[in-house]
Parts: sequence; C-alpha cells; structure tokens
Amino acid sequence: MSKGITSRSEDYSQWYNDLVIKADLAEYAAVRGCMVIKPYGYGIWERMQAILDKRFKETGHSNAYFPLFIPKSFFSKEASHVEGFATECAVVTHYRLKNDGNGNIIVDEEAKLEEELIVRPTSETIIWNTYRGWIESYRDLPILVNQWANVVRWEMRTRLFLRTSEFLWQEGHTAHATEQEAIEEAERMLDVYAEFAENILAVPVIRGRKTENERFAGALDTYCIEALMQDGKALQAGTSHFLGQNFAKAFDVKFTSKEGKLEHVWATSWGVSTRLMGALVMAHSDDQGLVLPPKLAPIQVVIVPIFRTEEEKAAIDTYVDHLMGELKNVGVSVKFDDRDTQRPGFKFAEWELKGVPLRVALGARDMQNGTVELARRDTQTKETVSQEGLSARIESLLDEIQINIYQKALNFRDSHITEVNSYDEFKEVLDKKGGFISCHWDGSVETEKRIKEETKATIRCIPLDSKKEEGICIFTGKPSVQRVLFAKAY
Amino acid sequence: MSKGITSRSEDYSQWYNDLVIKADLAEYAAVRGCMVIKPYGYGIWERMQAILDKRFKETGHSNAYFPLFIPKSFFSKEASHVEGFATECAVVTHYRLKNDGNGNIIVDEEAKLEEELIVRPTSETIIWNTYRGWIESYRDLPILVNQWANVVRWEMRTRLFLRTSEFLWQEGHTAHATEQEAIEEAERMLDVYAEFAENILAVPVIRGRKTENERFAGALDTYCIEALMQDGKALQAGTSHFLGQNFAKAFDVKFTSKEGKLEHVWATSWGVSTRLMGALVMAHSDDQGLVLPPKLAPIQVVIVPIFRTEEEKAAIDTYVDHLMGELKNVGVSVKFDDRDTQRPGFKFAEWELKGVPLRVALGARDMQNGTVELARRDTQTKETVSQEGLSARIESLLDEIQINIYQKALNFRDSHITEVNSYDEFKEVLDKKGGFISCHWDGSVETEKRIKEETKATIRCIPLDSKKEEGICIFTGKPSVQRVLFAKAY
Repeated sequence: MSKGITSRSEDYSQWYNDLVIKADLAEYAAVRGCMVIKPYGYGIWERMQAILDKRFKETGHSNAYFPLFIPKSFFSKEASHVEGFATECAVVTHYRLKNDGNGNIIVDEEAKLEEELIVRPTSETIIWNTYRGWIESYRDLPILVNQWANVVRWEMRTRLFLRTSEFLWQEGHTAHATEQEAIEEAERMLDVYAEFAENILAVPVIRGRKTENERFAGALDTYCIEALMQDGKALQAGTSHFLGQNFAKAFDVKFTSKEGKLEHVWATSWGVSTRLMGALVMAHSDDQGLVLPPKLAPIQVVIVPIFRTEEEKAAIDTYVDHLMGELKNVGVSVKFDDRDTQRPGFKFAEWELKGVPLRVALGARDMQNGTVELARRDTQTKETVSQEGLSARIESLLDEIQINIYQKALNFRDSHITEVNSYDEFKEVLDKKGGFISCHWDGSVETEKRIKEETKATIRCIPLDSKKEEGICIFTGKPSVQRVLFAKAY
Repeated sequence: MSKGITSRSEDYSQWYNDLVIKADLAEYAAVRGCMVIKPYGYGIWERMQAILDKRFKETGHSNAYFPLFIPKSFFSKEASHVEGFATECAVVTHYRLKNDGNGNIIVDEEAKLEEELIVRPTSETIIWNTYRGWIESYRDLPILVNQWANVVRWEMRTRLFLRTSEFLWQEGHTAHATEQEAIEEAERMLDVYAEFAENILAVPVIRGRKTENERFAGALDTYCIEALMQDGKALQAGTSHFLGQNFAKAFDVKFTSKEGKLEHVWATSWGVSTRLMGALVMAHSDDQGLVLPPKLAPIQVVIVPIFRTEEEKAAIDTYVDHLMGELKNVGVSVKFDDRDTQRPGFKFAEWELKGVPLRVALGARDMQNGTVELARRDTQTKETVSQEGLSARIESLLDEIQINIYQKALNFRDSHITEVNSYDEFKEVLDKKGGFISCHWDGSVETEKRIKEETKATIRCIPLDSKKEEGICIFTGKPSVQRVLFAKAY
C-alpha cells in the first residue's frame, strides 16, 4: 500500500496531519474546527480513559455529570475566568427552529432564550454553583469529583487532537476545608498525570508550575506536565490548578469549620484531554506511521499468514487458533489478519502504519520448522523465533517495547534541554536545536511577554525539582534565583 | 434519619422526585431542564455503561465520537427527521462574548455564525454525512459504530432522568449492504437491550414494534422494549430503528456492490439513555427508598458495627477486615460504615434509602456467638447467621436478590396485562387498573390518535411475539388481525 505520508524532515506539521488521517485516528468534521474521532483513534482514547479513571478512583474520586450549558451570568462571576474564556465561546441563543412557510428551516425568533447559554469551555462555574448546595459543614468535605465530558472553545486555528473547537476531556473539581489540603490535592493529581504520561504514554514529562502569565484563568497556581515532541517543540500534557477560594467566593460557597467558624471553601481543578492523542502521535511515531506503546495499542499483536494452498492455510489456522487463545489468556490483544483480499506485503505496511507493536508472520516453511517471524514496530527489527514458548516471549517483548519507547523519548528529551546564560545563546539554541532552554529570568510578566514577542518561546514551567541558583535574567540582566524552562510550544 | 419521602400511594410522582433527590441520584441544575447527576447516581449509570459497552463490543461494534454541533442545513436534509426534532433544538448562533464597556458581559454581535449550529438531539445527520467519506465499496461494509454522548432536546416539562433537556445516552449507527442485514442488526440490538433490561436492570420488557405514529422521525421501522412501572404506566426503555435508505439518500451515501452496481447503503440506529435510571428507580423502589438490583448497586453490601467500648470496636474491626478481604476477592463491592458521627439506626435508614441490597450488622454479642445480622433490602427481612461461610452465603444471596427483584417486577407486570374487547372495557381498565391493555385496533393512525386524545393512552407496541388473531377494532369496529398493547406512558 502507498502510505502517502509526508516525511518528518520535509514538513513535520504535514507529517502529523497525514499520519492522523491515514492511520484512521481522526478527521475534520463538516463543522468548522470540530473533529470526528474514528474507531481506531477512539480505541486508544478509551484505553487512556480506562487507565486514568482507575487512577482517579484509587485516589478517592468519584465521577459525576454536570450540565453542558452555563448561564452567561455565571460565567462572569469570576473576573479573571471570564476574561480567559469569553473570546472563544459557543453561545446558545434560541431553542427552536421552524419552517418559514417556503420550505426553509429557520431559527424561530419567538423562541429566544431570556438568558443566553454558554456551551461549557470548562465547568468551574456551574460546578461551584452546584457545590453551594452540597456543602454546609466540614463534614461535607472534601468533595472529590471528576467528570468525563466534551467541552467547546471556539478556536480560529485548529489541528486534529491538538486544538479543536470541541474536544473530550476529564475535569476534576475538588473542594477542601483547608488551603494545605487543596494544594496537596493539586500536587497529587499532577503526580497521577506524570505517572500516567511516563508509564502509559511512554512520554517523559517535566513537572512544574506555570508563571502568572500562563496560569489558568481563575487559578492561584497552575501545575503542569510538559512534554517534548520530536520537532523540539513542547506540549503541555496536563494541568492541575490550585484555585484558592476564588470560585468559592464568586459562588458564595462557605462551610462551618470544626471550630464553628464560617469559611470559604478551597478548590482545585485538573484536566487532561484528547490532546494527549496528539502528544502520543508526535512523541513516538516515524515516517512509516504510528508507533504505539503496547499499553495503549488497541491491537498489540497482529498475525499475518503467508500461504499458497488451502492445505498450508489450514495448518497455519490451527496453530494460530492455539496461539491466540494463549495470548488472550494472558491479556494480550491480538488480531489475526486473514483477509483474502490483500497480500501480506500490503498488510505489513498497513499494520506498520497503524503502529501495532508486534507482528507475527508465518508461512509453510515456518510451520515445518516450528518457527515464526517476529517483527518489532519500535526498532523495525525482525527475527525468526521458535513457536515454543512464543506467547511468553511476546508478553515480555511487549514490556520491553514499552520501556524502549519511553527510553528513546527520554534520551531525546534529555539531549534537548540546554542551559544558556545569554539572550544571544538563547536565540541561537531556539533556532538551531529547539527543545527546552533552561535559563534565568527576572520573574516579571513583562519580560516573559517581550521574549515571547521576539522569539515565540514561552516559559513552559518553573520545574518543581529545580534548585535555587543565583543568576541574572538573560533578557534584562536583573537578578534571578532559579532557572526556568523556555520553549516554543504547541 | 428522617427520609422525607412522600409515599407512593399518596403521590407516586412526588415519591419519585423525592427519592431521586434524597437518595443522591440527581438534582435539577441551575439551567432550565438540565440535571446534575450526582456521584451515587452516576455510579449506577457507569455500571450500566460498562455492561452495555461490553455487549456492544461482543456483537462487533466499536466506539467513535462525532461532533456535538450539526449545521442547520444538514438537519433539514431528511424531511421527516427535521419535523421530529426542529421544535426542541438548542441553537448556537454566536461564538464570542465581549465586555460592553460598562463591565457587562454581552454576546458579541460581530461574532455571528454564518450558519447556525444545532446542538445534536441525535446524530444520524452528522454521522451519515461522515459515512459518505468512509464508504465506497461493499468491502467497507458493514460499519458498526456506537457513540456515548450527551444530547439536547429542549423539553418544556422535565423530570429528573425521565425527561431532561440534556441527557446522556449511547447511539449506535450502522451501515449495511443489504436491507436484510440492516433489519437483522436492528433486531439483534433490540435483543441486547431486552437481555440487559431483564438480567441487569431486573426489569421485564415486552419487545415490539412501534406503530407509524410513534416511530422515530426518519425510520421505516422502530423496534422497542416497553417496561411497566409500579403506577401502571409504561416506559419505553430502549429503541432500535431500521432506517432503510432514508439517510443514505439524504446524504448521498452509495456503495459499489459485489455485482458492481452503485446502490444506496442501508442503515440502523439504536439507543438507550439515562432514562433507564428512571425506569430502574420506578420499577423496584418502595416507600423506604431505592431497591437496587445487585448487578447495578455501587455498594452491594454495607457493614455497620455496633459497639459501646473501644475494645468491642477493635474486635469487630479485625473481623470486618477479614470479611471485606474475602468479599472483595470474589468481586463483591462492600462498604464498612464505621463513621463515629452517626448512630447505627441512622446508618440503617440511610443505606435502606440508598438501596444497598444487603446489610451486615454486628455487635459484641454477635462476636461472642460467631454470628452477624443479615438484612435484605428487597424483602425487608433479617436473620442471624453464622460468620462461618458468610462470604459464600452473601455471594449466593446477591444472586437470589437479583432474581427475586426481577420476579417481583415480572409478577406485577404479568398481572397488569389485560385483554379487553370493547372500548368501554378499555376505558374502565385504563382508569381502575392501568397497565398494558391488549386489544384489537384497526391499524389506522387516525384511530390511534383519537384514542390518545380521549384517554391519553397510546399504542406502546405491536408485540413481536403476538399471534395473529381475527378481531374487531375496539374503537371503530373495523377488522383487525392482531392485538396491540395500549398504555399510558412516561
């Protein structure tokens, strides 16, 4: 099969688009900026959901569901929140269509809403308005709730998974009696995200805090995990916000403390989205197609038979039945591609494109020799191995592939963190190498904005593990006490 | 605790509302007609989802995701479809808010959409528009896709779970090469729903077909499952539609058949929604609270300790640790309610209200005797049983409870199907007894409408298993060949 994928070196951005479409992950919908997530892509997202959902429940959270629509007035109760979201909102103004008498369907102007409704871009406002009814005393706290939902942010420039007008996500919204407990929650969920990114997505991440300029609208502190893509650009893969008492104050949510005092509740929110699909594709894949970590691959092993006669086919079928049974027993997801409409070479290319971690091919000679050909997607290597003990070998190979994919991404990331001490150096590294640039910054919003204007690089985060170090800001020469990470970002 | 639930005999409708709210299943949101599904209610819905999703995958379906918004023009391409949905649609007309300069947030009139977007009330149109790009030849068929999503139908009179402006559901949308295959699919999914309703929800259902008047807008045939609530009203619990080639024609979706001919594709769609939560509550619960079938109960067993001293508590704790370990090992979901802020009697009432199938209570004397008190929610019976073999006993009791709840609902349903042969009899049964009324009908939309106007009863379905039987229509005296089921319905 002709894959029709642009190479990364030729045009990275086009490579990404080609790959997402050719590998059947998603496509643009007829509605501007929205996407259709196709079954193969959705299968990966479902795996992400299931694993994250388990993690959320293990850390004490329950799922719930809040309305899609938010009254406009709610939305403006938290001043910085409305500023952050007002310019990209879908607004519902009517609740009925009608026939205009000439056979045209038009909006029925008599069915105008008294108050416009905003399609949720995020749910802090509607949720905190609801929490007011749930919280009276410290005994009602903490509330540890998560929601899996669709949200809408009207984006002018969209890219499949990375930036779409509608996307799928989860948003955790928790309520606490103390500041300390809320901060701990925000940090705990950042750790959940980081562990997930590294062990499941196989994407190494840097845990950090956002600067004031990059913070979530309405947060006192935004924690984030930042990943690096193969083109040297960073991608924010998840955020966890300490919201202080901002939303509790905006929605008048108070509780009686153990000491009998009436106090405002402390809040966090945290989320990851279908953007992770973009991170997954861009972190690992190559010019031949997707490279999926086994823990997320909808199909972990594909088996392709090679035969000339019905007799040969029958022998292979019998063996494959047996092998598939063994693999399914140990929880390996396996597909037998016995289509008679396509040749083996076509199938090899197709499963390579779709990122299946392991391919088993076997023909008549293999059956005689008691062997199969095993091909790894991540290293593009093949070997002939014995049928004996094959399922155990496959199991351990899948683990090895998961680790190898992570290690490869880690090596790339680590070799793309560059310390610089001057603005000239900064610009040179940004231009020629990309990646994260570790440097001193004077801590002002103004400096950050000017660097962004001049170079398009932003402060991705102030790493949580960064040591205090005296230095001077590369841009203003003012004193600084620790390095931050700049990068161009998705 | 005071439960504050109206009794069923006093006001069935109020009983339902009280119960949904007091048992923490859901509440009305600040947005008209929308609901908040609370963690306990959502926990039940999640179990429904997981079980249905497994069934869908076992029957060959994959999940995918299509956009929330549908361009207005799409919506009107299938004539009967638009008629069915136009009068209850949320319409997005703008994509931005702004500050009016006086600190008020208003809709930015400069950000008006060229074409209004409809928030999906169902997704046939956007999906069939997408399928056009996926289907070229018979090799691309069948497409067996399901979507879990939120939909919006602007309802004027709403009731929690039963009828809300936004609700959660799944919608299957399949594409086939032949009429026969599509009909088989629609029937297969009806069977999946019926099996789920009976074995999981413990709600007996009648499988049938809708009359022309009650059909889904755009379907050639609508299959349904109809359940009976305790007040004698019917509830449609799931539908599966044979759509013929209607949507393929509206969206120009053709395929090349094996014989090389260009033909329109055949379609089905099928769905169940959070409405099932309402059916679950109304079918089984009583004046004391919810009665949940064990297969859906988020907590299957609650353990309540009764003690006076710390020493007594310690002994109980040790035993409970052991019991919980055993129960979790066999997959029983169990909660130890050791709150020290509430008395045992309060806890008993609370878990009764929340429908936990089995309660284990144990005090100092039980510890001496090696016993516990076991209380069943469904029969409201208690017995003292040995601690020996308790977890096995609990496991089998949960199975027994599941069956008993179903049997009780089945007995009620079966005793509420009444055959009548005259309109007077019809009206009398409808008034005094309710339930399903089996009678002859002349097959005309006109007659059905007139009976509905006069009695509020509608034809719930033409049962799939009904025998041909000569008769005369109770309303017009015209000839009829089989009985249909009338009822008042939710």
